[in-house]
This record gives sequence, C-alpha cells and structure tokens, in this order.
Amino acid sequence: MTAASGAAPAAEFRASGAAVRGFIETALSAAGSEATQAASVADALTQASLRGVDSHGCRLLVHYAKVVRTGRINPSPALGAKLTGPSTVIVDGDNGFGHHASFFAIDEAMRLARETGIAAAAVVNSSHFGAAGCYPMRAAAAGLVSFAFCNSDSFVLPHDGVAPFHGTNPLSFAAPVTGNRPYLFDMATSMVPWNRVQDMAAKGLKLPADVAVDATGKPTVEPLESAALLPLGGLAFGHKGAGLASVMEILSAVMTGMPHCADLLGMVGPDWTTPRRLGHFFIVIDPERFVPRALYDAGMAAYLANLRASPARDGKSVMAPGDREWKVEAERSANGIPVAPALKEAFDTLAGELSIAPLPPVA
Amino acid sequence: MTAASGAAPAAEFRASGAAVRGFIETALSAAGSEATQAASVADALTQASLRGVDSHGCRLLVHYAKVVRTGRINPSPALGAKLTGPSTVIVDGDNGFGHHASFFAIDEAMRLARETGIAAAAVVNSSHFGAAGCYPMRAAAAGLVSFAFCNSDSFVLPHDGVAPFHGTNPLSFAAPVTGNRPYLFDMATSMVPWNRVQDMAAKGLKLPADVAVDATGKPTVEPLESAALLPLGGLAFGHKGAGLASVMEILSAVMTGMPHCADLLGMVGPDWTTPRRLGHFFIVIDPERFVPRALYDAGMAAYLANLRASPARDGKSVMAPGDREWKVEAERSANGIPVAPALKEAFDTLAGELSIAPLPPVA
Repeated sequence: MTAASGAAPAAEFRASGAAVRGFIETALSAAGSEATQAASVADALTQASLRGVDSHGCRLLVHYAKVVRTGRINPSPALGAKLTGPSTVIVDGDNGFGHHASFFAIDEAMRLARETGIAAAAVVNSSHFGAAGCYPMRAAAAGLVSFAFCNSDSFVLPHDGVAPFHGTNPLSFAAPVTGNRPYLFDMATSMVPWNRVQDMAAKGLKLPADVAVDATGKPTVEPLESAALLPLGGLAFGHKGAGLASVMEILSAVMTGMPHCADLLGMVGPDWTTPRRLGHFFIVIDPERFVPRALYDAGMAAYLANLRASPARDGKSVMAPGDREWKVEAERSANGIPVAPALKEAFDTLAGELSIAPLPPVA
Repeated sequence: MTAASGAAPAAEFRASGAAVRGFIETALSAAGSEATQAASVADALTQASLRGVDSHGCRLLVHYAKVVRTGRINPSPALGAKLTGPSTVIVDGDNGFGHHASFFAIDEAMRLARETGIAAAAVVNSSHFGAAGCYPMRAAAAGLVSFAFCNSDSFVLPHDGVAPFHGTNPLSFAAPVTGNRPYLFDMATSMVPWNRVQDMAAKGLKLPADVAVDATGKPTVEPLESAALLPLGGLAFGHKGAGLASVMEILSAVMTGMPHCADLLGMVGPDWTTPRRLGHFFIVIDPERFVPRALYDAGMAAYLANLRASPARDGKSVMAPGDREWKVEAERSANGIPVAPALKEAFDTLAGELSIAPLPPVA
C-alpha cells in the first residue's frame, strides 16, 4: 500500500505476551531445542519484551534460532549442579542457552540462601543469557535480594584506551517490594547499549556526545562511524564504568574459569559453531537474616517514597529503578507487545523455515 | 618567609606511614577513644593516605578527633556480632567509629566465608567508615574476594532531580592477585567526590562540565556555586549512577534497618552530638569454592595482562583498578606521606589541644 493510495499507514503489529512466549517456545523447539530449555528462553525474552527492554526481548529469537541450528548451542543440555559448600554451587550449562542455565542457577542459589542466609552460583559453559534482570526478578518474587553479573565479547573501550576490550558487561540487582512490583536495577557498564547505536543509524540520527568512538578510538556522534562504545563516565570519568566492567569480568570469567572478554568468541560470529563458554555469577541474599520483614518493608517503602517525591527537572519526575519498566509492562500486558515491521517479517520467514504458525496479532 | 627574602619555598612536609599511623592513634586516644578503636581508625586512614586517597586519608583525623570529643562517637564501643545463619552476621558498631566496626565485620564475614563459601555482614549503629576499599583489602590479603557497600548523607542529585538526595554512596570490590598487590576497585557513585569541588575552589579552577549543579539544580562549572553533585553518567546517563547509589542505599540502610540517605544526620553537622546510625554491608566470597586457586591465579593474571596491554590514547596507558594506587603507595612508602601546609597546621593545633607530640617529618 503506498501513500498515494490515500490509505492510513499500516497499524502497528502487536502480539500478546502469551502469543510471543508461545511463538518463541514453538520456534526454538522446532529448531531442535529440547522443550524445557525452549521454555526458559521464551520466559526470559517475553518478560524483557513486556517490560520494554526490546534490545533483549523477542527480537533475539532470530539469533537464538540460528545458533541452535548452527550447533553453537547444545539443543539438549544436561544441566549439572555441583555443591561446593553450604552456600556455593557451580552450575554447568552444558553449552545450552544461557537463560536455561541461569534460571536453574538462581533457583539453586535461592534454595541455598534460604538455608544459610546468602549463597552464590557460578555458571560455567553457558552462552548469552538475555536481560540480566530476569534472574534477580525471580529471586525478588520469592522475597529475596540478589545480584546477577555477566561479561560479553569486546565492544567497549577500557579507560584511556582506543580499542574495544570489555563487553557491555551488565550488572543487575533486584529487591522485593511487598505489595508492588520489585525494585529492579539492570545496567550495562557502557554509556549506551550497542543497539542504541544501530537504532540511531537506522533513524539517521546523531548520537549524544561522549558515548561512542570510531575505529581509531576518536569520539564520534555518527552512528555509522561508530566502532566501539565508551565506558560509563565517558572520556573523562570512564575509569568508573571500566572498573565496574572489570568487576563483572572477574566474577564471570576469572571466578568461573571461563574465557575473559578479549578471549570470547563473538556473539555474532564469524564462528557460529563453537560453544562460547560464557560464565555468569549470581548472589542471593535472604533479607530476613538481617532485618525483620516488617522493618525491611517499611524501610524500602520509605526510601522509595522519598526518592520518588524528590523535586524534579521541568517536565520530568524522579523515578526509582524499575518504575519505567513496570509502566511499560502494564501497558504491554493490556495492549500487546509491539513488533516492528522488519522483525515481524523476520518472524514470518522463520515460521516458514520451521513450518510453524506465524506469530498471531492481538485479538 | 616571603618571596622577597629570596628564599626557596618551604619544602613539602612529609611524614612516614608509621609516624602518621602513630600520630592518629595517639591523637584519638588522647581525645578519649579506647585504644583498639583508635588503632582501627589509624590503620584505615594511613592505608588510604599511603595509596593516595587523600580525601579519605589522614586529613579526616581532624574531623574524627572532633566527633569523639563532641560525643557523637562512642569512645569505648562494645562491638557485638550476632550470627543469624551459617553465612550471615549482624555487627553492632555501638555508635563507635565505622572503621572499627567494619574491620570487625569483614573479619567475621571472612571467617564465615571460609566455612560456607560466601558470607555477608551487615553493620548497624555505625558511623563514617573512611575509604570503602580498606575492608575488601583485608579480605584480599587473605585470598578472598569481597564487596563493601555504604551510603552517606545527601550530596548527589537523583536522575532528573534538582535537589541532593543520595549520598556519594561508595562501592568497593577487591580480589587477590597472587604475587602482587591486589585488584582494588573503589568508587563513589557520583561523577566526582565533593572534596574535588572544594579542591578546585581552593585552586581557583573551573570544574569539568556535567559533574556539579548549583542550588537550583542547574549545571555549573563554578566550584563556589556548586551545591550538589551529579550522579555517575551526568545529566544524560545519570540513571546509571543514581541506580547504583540506590543499590548501596538498599544494602546499607534498608537491609540494616538504619536511616536512608535523606534521613541521615549530616557528617559535618549541625548536630555534632547525636550518633548518626550509619549502616554498611559486606560480602566475602572464597574463590576456591568455584575454581582451583591455580586456575584463578592464571585467569586473573591473563585478564590483567591483556587489559594493561590494550592500546592507549597518546601519552596514556590502560591501567587496571588499583594500579595507580599501588604506584603511589610505593612512592609514599619510600618518601613519606605529603601533608599540605593547612593540614599540618591543623595537626599542630590538635597536638597542642591534646598535649601530644606533633607529627614528626620523615627523617
């Protein structure tokens, strides 16, 4: 349909969370993945899409369906848990999807934390685990406080460096808020995610200053010239973001015996068959070992209320981590998850290849 | 001595680490503190001064000598440790110096982590604990990996806010490096520390852009107009720094039942007599529960070597967290800790008030 036809532009395609979840699960199963693993990936991607984290939402299905077919991902991993102390466990992801190993790991850490007060799970032989916040979210739903740490392949300059070294190395922390959606903090240790650069390129827009560099390490606002990201803090204060990235590196790689950022195979090739052997690290804490639940609840409520009541810049409001996400989640739960035309087309192609039904629109 | 006299400017005053440590310990004891507590504070301040963290080094003695005399600090705290699980402990600082409670807490957490693999210590009824890195440093010296978290009174804008809310809420992480000084990361979650602003004011210099705001919340580069700091990430990306600050708040205040940033009494008055009831939170991890020591050592050495070998901007080099500090520590261990004229004068005044010997210069 062309503009000349006088018709309105095509309505935005939206699919319900349940439909998106089902489509991902069916597609990955059809691509060869064992069913419980496909369900783990579908859970992680759908919750990211629902809360508006589109970079780590259903769009990743296309990538994941590829890597399970190319053999990088073990379609039927046998997850292993080795208890190494009353509060510690090593989870072997058996080179399956990182989401599957990570849900398993956070469950193990939650079980141990309930017994001893705090526990840690290291995940070995894993792969991309999607949005880091998915796993602390599960612990928060059970009344527990937790951290998730991960590294990734090189995309971000070290401080005072000119070549990519660290990954966007995310850190997530969640804490329960009784009677409400949890407190959820989930950040990359770069100034912006790489997909922001791609998004600006697609829209023909300039980047903000001090977030990206060209292939020589020189700062640039041109998305198409961008070759790497600056760490949080930018050129002047990037020692902080780079330092955070290195903490993620120690926990995810050194503490797991997995490759560090500079030795990791790239997520987007060129090698599509060798397992990437990513590591992750999770810490779960039972707040009731430190403070009675009623006092925890009152303290959290008072802190969040004071933060949100803090005077704001014109036209803005001061939000707590997660506030934006729960607003989006409420809207998308009601109206469906928007799927951009290019992504819908990729989903339709994938459905054709796998001989499954296409993703249906909201009723 | 005036410039007109033709004499060279007075030589920089330096004192050995041992002399600084002894002076602090003697001064605090003379000010009324019980001896082991005075020794804890002296240890923390001296190691911060030796590694160049002057904001949290011996200059703080003047403040601490004041607050133990005004009654804010309990001169003879009876520290308490309440085990609440195999891996958790609550340490009651009894309103003494935060350094004393924090060394005690990290020791308790180290003991538990050796037993169970990971442990956490929450500190209640504490006060300013100096440089956050002091406590993870002790764990690293014993082969353990650890975090320290703390909040402080309001100095930093929340993201999109115009009034100070969070403190500079530091985060520290240390990890052992066999055969070398440890990996040490210690950052405030603001762009710069407040004492940087004061330092620039004293020198008549402008601030970098995007680090401070005036009393109306408007960004300023004038130190004398600065009323608050921006969170790490600045105006555009401050949701990351503010989010990190809020994680510190939950761990240090909500999880300990202590007041959060907005409810804390100010470190520098106007109330000098009421205990501030700060909370801290420490996590200690035994890496050998996750990876054999030899593999940990090899992984850490390879990661740090690759990071330091990363190509750098002209005239710079890529450093790992701690590298700068250990360089300063080596120089100051050899040549003494520099004490600026105004601080030396304050020390001399204090020595007179307390009838103790003045801080002697290096021999």
